[in-house]
Amino acid sequence: MKLQVAIDRVSLADAVQLARKLDGIADIVEFGTSIIKDYGFYEIQAANVNLKHSLLLLDTKTNDEGQYEFEQGFKTGADILTVMGTAGQETLAGVYQIAEQKNKKVLIDLMGMSNKAILEIAKFPNAIYNLHNSHDAGKNTDLTNLVSDFRKNFPAIKNIAVAGSIDLEQAKKLAVQNEVQEVIVGSKIVHSNDPVNEASKFKEIINLC
Amino acid sequence: MKLQVAIDRVSLADAVQLARKLDGIADIVEFGTSIIKDYGFYEIQAANVNLKHSLLLLDTKTNDEGQYEFEQGFKTGADILTVMGTAGQETLAGVYQIAEQKNKKVLIDLMGMSNKAILEIAKFPNAIYNLHNSHDAGKNTDLTNLVSDFRKNFPAIKNIAVAGSIDLEQAKKLAVQNEVQEVIVGSKIVHSNDPVNEASKFKEIINLC
Repeated sequence: MKLQVAIDRVSLADAVQLARKLDGIADIVEFGTSIIKDYGFYEIQAANVNLKHSLLLLDTKTNDEGQYEFEQGFKTGADILTVMGTAGQETLAGVYQIAEQKNKKVLIDLMGMSNKAILEIAKFPNAIYNLHNSHDAGKNTDLTNLVSDFRKNFPAIKNIAVAGSIDLEQAKKLAVQNEVQEVIVGSKIVHSNDPVNEASKFKEIINLC
Repeated sequence: MKLQVAIDRVSLADAVQLARKLDGIADIVEFGTSIIKDYGFYEIQAANVNLKHSLLLLDTKTNDEGQYEFEQGFKTGADILTVMGTAGQETLAGVYQIAEQKNKKVLIDLMGMSNKAILEIAKFPNAIYNLHNSHDAGKNTDLTNLVSDFRKNFPAIKNIAVAGSIDLEQAKKLAVQNEVQEVIVGSKIVHSNDPVNEASKFKEIINLC
């Protein structure tokens, strides 16, 4: 199971500094939507972040104009961009094609989607499907139940990531369950007193199982 | 009926220059999502755009972290920000409250929503509800039918805007129909040979009815 660390609601300089410290601890470093909307693609350059081991994901949360946003987003040098599952078939197919052509990845954010709607978009084999509890909706009680229901409902989906208020205990449960490919952790690492130490703890727990 | 002109996929300098020329012709000048994601809130400042007559809308298309995005977005000096209707109840209620407190406006983008889902969010009296055909999904054939169905289904919604490949003929039909408060026109004005002249034509047709 991979660890993605989401950096959000900080200055770009702080985000870059933290990303470098997390290089090699996090499998994927995420610059959240807040950083994209505060600074924009032209300011965010993967070459400046200069990660040697981790991949860089920009949480673009694309809703429309998929081709433009993904061309611009990948020009930053990022490895993975994200699209809303609610964006519609044309947008999803378009961004998936761009990512495939460039040997890059798409993460599809399933926030706010019904099972019926997810079924209609469960057809992009190399995409990462992100089971996402909205930040604004608050905590979810048990992610392992959510994951096991999801696996039953969507056997065709290969790559699953889970996000939303994941702490060490929850990460351990998910690692033991061994059903998802990736956990995404934000505030629990980034807004802790010692983000690097906290990320290492997550990585260790994940690697144990 | 008001005219909103959406500026997208150009440099910020060009967007600012065009916005100034459209000042007083468009009721609302929109800087599209592409401009926000390319340049970010810190670069986009209403004081630099310096509109004397038109309002400035930033098409933030917020999906989550509504409070942060709307606080940051309104700090630019913009008058109206947008949120995806699919974002969920908590996000919508949060951004609506911020806009109300600041005497600003929210436009709720209904792209990709079922009538059932729209019904659940038809409860923000001062919001503008945007009937939106996705750019990626292409042209819609008849917006007046769409509008008249919408009026029947959602009598509680006061403010409706329509967007999506609107040309002069379509704008005229909508003005004659007199059921929507606002039309949003993008490429047909911005990517024409003479955007100011084209915007004036739209404004004239809208004012005729």
